[in-house]
Amino acid sequence: MSHNKTIHAFAANEPGGRLEPFAYEVGELSPDQIEIDVRYCGICHSDLSMLDDEWGMSQFPLVAGHEVIGTVAATGSNVRSLEKGMTVGLGWHSGYCGECGSCLSGDQNLCAGAQGTIVAHHGGFADKVRADASSVVVIPDGMELESAGPLFCGGITVFNPLVQFDVKSTDKVAVIGIGGLGHIALKFLNAWGCEVTAFTSSESKRQEALALGAHKTLNSRDPQAIEAAAGSFDFILSTVNVKLDWNLYVNTLKPRGRLHFVGATLEPLDLAVFPLLGGQRSVSGSPVGSPATIAQMLEFARRHDIRPQVEVFPMDEINAALDHLRSGKARYRVVLSNV
Amino acid sequence: MSHNKTIHAFAANEPGGRLEPFAYEVGELSPDQIEIDVRYCGICHSDLSMLDDEWGMSQFPLVAGHEVIGTVAATGSNVRSLEKGMTVGLGWHSGYCGECGSCLSGDQNLCAGAQGTIVAHHGGFADKVRADASSVVVIPDGMELESAGPLFCGGITVFNPLVQFDVKSTDKVAVIGIGGLGHIALKFLNAWGCEVTAFTSSESKRQEALALGAHKTLNSRDPQAIEAAAGSFDFILSTVNVKLDWNLYVNTLKPRGRLHFVGATLEPLDLAVFPLLGGQRSVSGSPVGSPATIAQMLEFARRHDIRPQVEVFPMDEINAALDHLRSGKARYRVVLSNV
Repeated sequence: MSHNKTIHAFAANEPGGRLEPFAYEVGELSPDQIEIDVRYCGICHSDLSMLDDEWGMSQFPLVAGHEVIGTVAATGSNVRSLEKGMTVGLGWHSGYCGECGSCLSGDQNLCAGAQGTIVAHHGGFADKVRADASSVVVIPDGMELESAGPLFCGGITVFNPLVQFDVKSTDKVAVIGIGGLGHIALKFLNAWGCEVTAFTSSESKRQEALALGAHKTLNSRDPQAIEAAAGSFDFILSTVNVKLDWNLYVNTLKPRGRLHFVGATLEPLDLAVFPLLGGQRSVSGSPVGSPATIAQMLEFARRHDIRPQVEVFPMDEINAALDHLRSGKARYRVVLSNV
Repeated sequence: MSHNKTIHAFAANEPGGRLEPFAYEVGELSPDQIEIDVRYCGICHSDLSMLDDEWGMSQFPLVAGHEVIGTVAATGSNVRSLEKGMTVGLGWHSGYCGECGSCLSGDQNLCAGAQGTIVAHHGGFADKVRADASSVVVIPDGMELESAGPLFCGGITVFNPLVQFDVKSTDKVAVIGIGGLGHIALKFLNAWGCEVTAFTSSESKRQEALALGAHKTLNSRDPQAIEAAAGSFDFILSTVNVKLDWNLYVNTLKPRGRLHFVGATLEPLDLAVFPLLGGQRSVSGSPVGSPATIAQMLEFARRHDIRPQVEVFPMDEINAALDHLRSGKARYRVVLSNV
C-alpha cells in the first residue's frame, strides 16, 4: 500500500498566469518535517514577485503562499517540540541547513542554504503544506488566528530590524511606504515607544497612518517638506520597492542615523558618501527574522494587541484576492481562508 | 600697547599654489582658547584637498595642517584642564559648539557647528596655532612625539569605527588602501586581536602590509580573487578616495557584515539592495573621533607601542614635503618638524 497522499493547492503554470487548482502527491514525512493543515494564508508582495518570476528564481507550476497559520496534522519521527493539533505559523523559510555559522549563531534567517517556502517548494495556497519543524513557530494562546499569518513574513520583516539594530524607545523613527509591511511597522513602533513618522504619498493613507500609530506624517512626494526634516530621524525603515531620492532621505537622518531597507528595490542606491561620512550614518537591509525573533514578535504582538489589518477571502477566490492586492486597494493585507 | 602678536605660518594664496611664508596677527586669547607652540605637524590627504579647494570650502590665504603635536604656550581665562608647558595634540577640529545633541552626547566629532582647524581657521603649518581647550587632547607620558601627530587625524579616523561599531577581537577585518590611514589601521586591528586582511593593488606594499600587521593580503585589482573571498569579512574599512566596484566588496562580507568608509570618495556608491537585504549587511561612513575617543586611542597606541610610520621634513621644507606626499611615494605619513 502506498504512503502517498494528495495535497490540493492553487498553482500558476507560467509567469503571471491565473492560479488553477493543482494537486500534487507527497510521500512519507521526512524525520524532521511536519505537515500543517492550512487554516489561513496571507498574500505578500513577494508572492506576486514569485508568481510573476520577477526575481528569476520561480519554478512552475508554482504554489505560492508563505504566511501560513495552521494546525499540525502530522510530525516526522525526530520531531519532539511539536505535536498533532498544535497551532503554528510558517513564513518565508520552511527549513534551514542547521550547520552553517548563521544557523549556529541563531541567525537561521541569514542561512545561505535555507529552504524558501515557495522557492522550489510548494507553499501555503493549499489545504496542506510541509515544512521542517525547526522553521515553524507555535502561536501563543489567545492570539487572533485570522490576522496572524501576515506577521510571519510582513510582520517579522519590520519587527526584526528593531531587534537587530537595537532601536530604542526614545528614538524617532520614520516608515517609508504604508502598505502591507508599513502599516504593521507603524503599530510595532508605536508600541515600542518611539516617535513615529509615516512617509506616504497618498492623502487617503495620511489619516489612516495616524490611526495606525504614526504621530506625524510627511508627504513623500514633497521634496521641500523632506528637506525641511533634515536631521530628524534616528532610524528610517523603507518598505517600498521603488526608487526614491535616497540621498534626500539620508539627509533626514540624525548623526548616527540608519536608513534601513526591507523593501526589495531592484535599482541600485546611488548614495553620496559625504553625508554618511560626516554624520556617521549607516545604510542597511535585512530579510525576515529567525524563529527565535518570530517567537519574540508574537509575544510582543499579543501583549500589545497588535494585529495586521486584513481582508479575508475564501481560498477558492484566490484569483480575486490576488487581483485585489495587485490593484493597490488592499487595506492592508489580504488573507486567504480555508476555515 | 597692543595685545597683538604675530604667528608665522606657511600659506597657499590660491588653489594648488605653492606655500609661502605668511604671517598673521592674533589678539588676546578668548577665554576658552589655548595657544600651542607647534613642535610637529603631520600632512594629511585632506590638507591637499583643502589646499587644492577640492571640496569648495577653502578660504585663501589658507594655512593647512591639522595633525599638530605641541606645547601649551598660553591659556584663556576659563581654561582649567590645561596649563602652560603641557604636551597636547590637535586634530581636524579646533572647537565644538558644546550645545547640540551630538556635543551633549559626547559625539563632538559629529557636531554640525564644529570648527575645522583648517576651515576658515589657520592650522598647524606654523610656529603656533590656536584652538579651543575642549578640542585638544593631552599626550600620555612616554609617547614618541615625532610620530604622534598623524594619530590625531589619520589615526583617529581608523580607530574610531572600531569603537563606534563594536568591532570584536574575534572579527575578520579587511582594510582597503594601505596608505596614510590604512597602514595605521593594520597596526590597530592587529593589536585589537582581529584577523587582518589588506586589500592592496601594489606588489611593493604587499610585503609591507604583512610587516605592518596584516595576516593576509588580497590584490584589489584581481576581481576573481575578490570574488573567491565571498562571505569572508565581518568588517571592511575603506580608506581610499577612488571609486571601486563596491558591490564586489559587499559580496566579501559575511552575513551581518559592514562596509565602512573613512575615505572621502566623491562618486556615489551604486549599491545593489539585495546583497544588503539578504545578508543583513550595512554600509556606513564616519569622520574623525571625539576627544574622549582620541584619548582612548592614545592610551591604546601607547600600550601596544603603535606608531604611525613617518618621514620627517623640517617645516621650512614644506613644499618638498607636500611634493613627496603628492608623488604617492610617502611611506606612510609625512610630518613637518619645528624641533
